Amino acid sequence: MSTFITKAASRPFRVCVVGSGNWGTTVAKIVCENTQIYTDLFEPKVNMWVHEEEIDGRKLTEIINTEHENVKYLPGIRLPGNLHAVPNLLDAVRDSNIIVFNIPHQFLRSVCAQLKGYVHPHTRAISCLKGLDVSANKITTLPAYISEHLGIHCGALSGANLAPEIAQEKFSETTVAYRYPSTQEWKPEDESQDVTKDDLRKLFHRPYFHVNVIDDITGVCLAGALKNVVAIAAGFVDGRGWGENAKAAIMRRGLLEMVQFGQTFFKGGDPRTYTEESAGVADLITSCAGGRNHRVGRAYGKLTKEDPTITKTLQDLERELLNGQSAQGILTAVEVYKFLKTQDALEQFPLMTATYRIAFEGESIDELPKILEQVEKKKYKL
Amino acid sequence: MSTFITKAASRPFRVCVVGSGNWGTTVAKIVCENTQIYTDLFEPKVNMWVHEEEIDGRKLTEIINTEHENVKYLPGIRLPGNLHAVPNLLDAVRDSNIIVFNIPHQFLRSVCAQLKGYVHPHTRAISCLKGLDVSANKITTLPAYISEHLGIHCGALSGANLAPEIAQEKFSETTVAYRYPSTQEWKPEDESQDVTKDDLRKLFHRPYFHVNVIDDITGVCLAGALKNVVAIAAGFVDGRGWGENAKAAIMRRGLLEMVQFGQTFFKGGDPRTYTEESAGVADLITSCAGGRNHRVGRAYGKLTKEDPTITKTLQDLERELLNGQSAQGILTAVEVYKFLKTQDALEQFPLMTATYRIAFEGESIDELPKILEQVEKKKYKL
Repeated sequence: MSTFITKAASRPFRVCVVGSGNWGTTVAKIVCENTQIYTDLFEPKVNMWVHEEEIDGRKLTEIINTEHENVKYLPGIRLPGNLHAVPNLLDAVRDSNIIVFNIPHQFLRSVCAQLKGYVHPHTRAISCLKGLDVSANKITTLPAYISEHLGIHCGALSGANLAPEIAQEKFSETTVAYRYPSTQEWKPEDESQDVTKDDLRKLFHRPYFHVNVIDDITGVCLAGALKNVVAIAAGFVDGRGWGENAKAAIMRRGLLEMVQFGQTFFKGGDPRTYTEESAGVADLITSCAGGRNHRVGRAYGKLTKEDPTITKTLQDLERELLNGQSAQGILTAVEVYKFLKTQDALEQFPLMTATYRIAFEGESIDELPKILEQVEKKKYKL
Repeated sequence: MSTFITKAASRPFRVCVVGSGNWGTTVAKIVCENTQIYTDLFEPKVNMWVHEEEIDGRKLTEIINTEHENVKYLPGIRLPGNLHAVPNLLDAVRDSNIIVFNIPHQFLRSVCAQLKGYVHPHTRAISCLKGLDVSANKITTLPAYISEHLGIHCGALSGANLAPEIAQEKFSETTVAYRYPSTQEWKPEDESQDVTKDDLRKLFHRPYFHVNVIDDITGVCLAGALKNVVAIAAGFVDGRGWGENAKAAIMRRGLLEMVQFGQTFFKGGDPRTYTEESAGVADLITSCAGGRNHRVGRAYGKLTKEDPTITKTLQDLERELLNGQSAQGILTAVEVYKFLKTQDALEQFPLMTATYRIAFEGESIDELPKILEQVEKKKYKL
């Protein structure tokens, strides 16, 4: 007898959101608004898995389900009545055809371990996570990690998406990456009942949240992770007070290295994902305008300008400035550096490499222009 | 007998900078620093044409030549001793092989009229101007205008280049666009003596001012002009208080329309100029971070939010906020709109069109998401 508790994709789709932080809850709100509209395509009711906790003696799930507000992670935002908070992960995903993953990166391993064996191979998934899974000389995107561990096809959603602004229904855009699976074991018997790109657009698009659906899942994920490293470097330069030209220069170099990283290590991706999509250039712009990684980088640039002998690390600043939240780019900078080293490719990624060396090996930010110039000199054969 | 007072390109090149505003003087400083180094390639002495004026009873050219400071337009910056300010335009360009144009757009017509007939057809030129020349249903880049009116080959220099930061030698980048002329009348007898891309890199590159030399003159010029329209639109959204996501979305859409404009109306350009070069995405980023066009747009967005019936125009705000300087994007928005209308192409450029209509036809900024959504719906056939 099958142990699967989720279902193969077939219409109307039942959608489950796994995760209930500010971004998870915001995406659940969007999804619920759309499942109420497209009732031929989706079951209106949407489960959201909530890691249960007590707020003033009441369970968070109970508060969400009765007061329609996630008072802990998205206070002040009215949630749709068809959103159901569920504290048990397996109960939450039961009978769903589409699972939207939206949890902090560090919980993915445990969530996948709990779901393993219970997910039908024709259930479809979308990952809203940022980050990469790196081990020794292998880099994996998180949809690929989900696919590998749960045996299901998984797309991605990423963009210039600061959650609080979207929760308030301020205008923004995102990129959904999905393509019909080519692997035989992921193909359903009746393809006509399966999830299409157009279905996903209907699931996520709102008048205030515009969706572009593309094929390049890997590019969307790499851009979402690598841009955090660039944001740290842009922060370094801002902390030094070098001005807008220098910051734009770092962002441009970073964008080029993001493209190059994808083209070098993940064949088949589309360079335009980085330079044209919300998940690429637009997300880079918001992240460098004052996101967490930029703030940590800027503080480091400022402190080391005032006192070059200071021994504070980026992690120290992360703890001091971010109030328990993490600057994902610090970890990504380390992982990217280690990976590039195994590939003997540090020199080809001077900005990524310099960002790591500044953060962890005492390289001075003041050397950045010279480091970048050396690469150009090689290019121009000077 | 020839009336030419400039020379065909031949080494060592004599360089003249036409223009002495803050950007003109900054570029002249850079050029002088390099002509002192590469003496095989360039004559060290560089003339800079200065529109003469009196400062406290002394001539500006005399102050520049004796005190090595442009006290009017670039105060506080020490200029190299090999920079010579010349008040007469023809005297300034006499015997030069390379002319660097760096004057406000509105003076180009008169400068070209004065130079006409005196410039040798094998003299080389670089335009640092931003803007387009538009008449009826024809759009011309400014190097093309210079070529047409002076009969010389002309490249371009443009990038994320706020002049005061570069004058202070803070790190930045730029793009130089140049290719060997294909027109027979512009080809010299001895091509080995002519200006190469590498020569131009040596002329403009500094440890603090990194130069990338590409072929796409048209793309560099279009990007430099069109980004100002996008900066106004980004300002609208900032003025409304819609946040970083919305601003990044407008910038991304704008960037795509810039690429599309070039590809539609100027065949043969390279879309990567817009998405990968300093003259493209990086210049867009600095311009939307708080340049003049962005400031005017933001003020308009804020005022019309507080009082939707207000009748102030962008030009009123330009006068109030910019202290006599111009927001080039206002004029460019008008020119682009008129041109697109003659091409029956308004619908294909929804952001450019909406920016004009918001500024001049009372369209509300609040309609922007809906306007952009309509275009997507057509794309997705919804």
